[in-house]
Amino acid sequence: MTQAKGYAALNEKSKLEPFAFARRALRPNDIAIDILYCGVCHTDLHFARNHYGDTVYPLVPGHEIVGRVTAVGDDVTKFGVGDAVAVGCIVDSCGRCRPCEHGLEPYCEQGLTLTYNNPDRISGENNLGGYADKIVVKEEFVLRVPEGLDLTRAGPLLCAGITTWSPLRYWKVGPGSRVAVAGLGGLGHMGVKLAVGLGAHVTVLTTSPSKAGDARALGAHDVLLSKDESAMAEAAGRFDLVLDTIPVAHDISPYLALAGLDGVVVMVGAIDMLPTFHTGSLVMGRKSLTASMIGGIPETQELLNFCAEKNILPDCEMIAMKDINHAFERMERSDVKYRFVIDMSTL
Amino acid sequence: MTQAKGYAALNEKSKLEPFAFARRALRPNDIAIDILYCGVCHTDLHFARNHYGDTVYPLVPGHEIVGRVTAVGDDVTKFGVGDAVAVGCIVDSCGRCRPCEHGLEPYCEQGLTLTYNNPDRISGENNLGGYADKIVVKEEFVLRVPEGLDLTRAGPLLCAGITTWSPLRYWKVGPGSRVAVAGLGGLGHMGVKLAVGLGAHVTVLTTSPSKAGDARALGAHDVLLSKDESAMAEAAGRFDLVLDTIPVAHDISPYLALAGLDGVVVMVGAIDMLPTFHTGSLVMGRKSLTASMIGGIPETQELLNFCAEKNILPDCEMIAMKDINHAFERMERSDVKYRFVIDMSTL
Repeated sequence: MTQAKGYAALNEKSKLEPFAFARRALRPNDIAIDILYCGVCHTDLHFARNHYGDTVYPLVPGHEIVGRVTAVGDDVTKFGVGDAVAVGCIVDSCGRCRPCEHGLEPYCEQGLTLTYNNPDRISGENNLGGYADKIVVKEEFVLRVPEGLDLTRAGPLLCAGITTWSPLRYWKVGPGSRVAVAGLGGLGHMGVKLAVGLGAHVTVLTTSPSKAGDARALGAHDVLLSKDESAMAEAAGRFDLVLDTIPVAHDISPYLALAGLDGVVVMVGAIDMLPTFHTGSLVMGRKSLTASMIGGIPETQELLNFCAEKNILPDCEMIAMKDINHAFERMERSDVKYRFVIDMSTL
Repeated sequence: MTQAKGYAALNEKSKLEPFAFARRALRPNDIAIDILYCGVCHTDLHFARNHYGDTVYPLVPGHEIVGRVTAVGDDVTKFGVGDAVAVGCIVDSCGRCRPCEHGLEPYCEQGLTLTYNNPDRISGENNLGGYADKIVVKEEFVLRVPEGLDLTRAGPLLCAGITTWSPLRYWKVGPGSRVAVAGLGGLGHMGVKLAVGLGAHVTVLTTSPSKAGDARALGAHDVLLSKDESAMAEAAGRFDLVLDTIPVAHDISPYLALAGLDGVVVMVGAIDMLPTFHTGSLVMGRKSLTASMIGGIPETQELLNFCAEKNILPDCEMIAMKDINHAFERMERSDVKYRFVIDMSTL
């Protein structure tokens, strides 16, 4: 056991506050990490406030973790002390089912183990996340941060990045692909950068004309105002893939209309009841509506390597740990471009 | 112009009755066909009774047409007099858009031209369908009935067959695929036969235990009662593709639950408002919900060839033309296994 310190929510009404706790002693396949930076995801806020109804307190959020290895278990072979590493949303899975065998751990048939607010598969103790100075993680769920990837900004790749990367890759986005990205928050801004990086022609769909400049600054080739009915009608059928990062329940029909023959609308933002829509919008063009969650460990490593090679990084605002409650408030009103990252040296 | 006779609905209240009309004179790329058999599709009934609100009367239904060539236009190269041929739901499209160029005429960007109740692209006259002794069709939309395919039963392949064949092929169903077919009517029974023919393991989903024997007689390997909650729960995640042929609006959640990782639910029955469902049922397993309509000319020809080779035929009940109104009544109460075919020699 090692003493650790971090920030925790003690109940659903409380602000996050300093919290001391223990990290487990290293198992043979564990890696001990000193956390340097941790991204702030909207999910952190949802769990802190018990929006899903299943939060176990004290809750230490944080699943966009970047740090350095300080110790390794006896059986660890892939990492050594001093390595730059990262940890995302998942820290364990069964390892034996078909999804796990295919590197798709989020879809583990026994259920994935989240980095926080999920019981450890061995001890049963509630996992505590990355708003802390240290973490201990099973080797198989630790990513390597490639040479050249900026440690201060790599964190959000572990959630916002992989959540958009996974469907872009699964649906084979590349040069010649016509991609629309709906919503320009943490996920959307990564979707734009990654789709551009993959060589696609990228259009941002937004409700607010004020975001057009932002979209182009991120690399988008075009901007479409979703409230402009004639522009939307003109763009009907124009896209191979619509990446829908809108975080709240919404009518999917306008996005299906934008997809062309064999086009795909992927929802990665909202997990909610989908308002009724007419199946004719799928029939006419043999379109698919799909959704996905984060991504597997191999594809997350692929993403980190890709971002290092292409120098693609999230737009981040660095904050001190003590400012997390203010950051939560700003995140709630979408006042961040596009991701807060906690500098853990401020803890 | 050639005199033809058939059966028509004269208004939305009328029964179908004998009707004399003219078929157009042959254009250079036209083929004149003596109709031998015509399948009876539920769509015929919908149009006859103006359920879609756009029926032009007099309406001659029929888009599962089998016959023999009696004359060809000057530029026709692929067919000769005496050839056994077939015509399905579409008789024209623009021929120049991306879908048309890829043999996906139903998705023509200028809109497809239906075999009946749609204006001819040249004359603008309302097309009249296959409940008739003759028809004239543009060469590109005429299919060849391969040697060995039973002419008396080939008709329903042109609609019920291709509607199920197209998604089975598009989603690469083959040996090892685990396919569920929901609904056991005209479409469903073809879906079972074709998926079995493609080498898949096929399960029929049905509400009525009485259909289990029917399903197995069609070649299904397994039957799942959709009202048996524990059996449905046990089958969760078991299928690669769920072919949903249910013709009325229904909750899609139970069918999404049956699909496994990267599984697909294809709706080919209902074109209607889709009741609200939770997107978590797509997220958990990266599943796709899609739909499609009939199929292109090349894949329809592929289907006919496949059925001739594998000796796959719809289960049909032959009727005389004069019995069409009674057949409509029986079709409305699903009292047909599984398709009526009109013997046009009875006209």
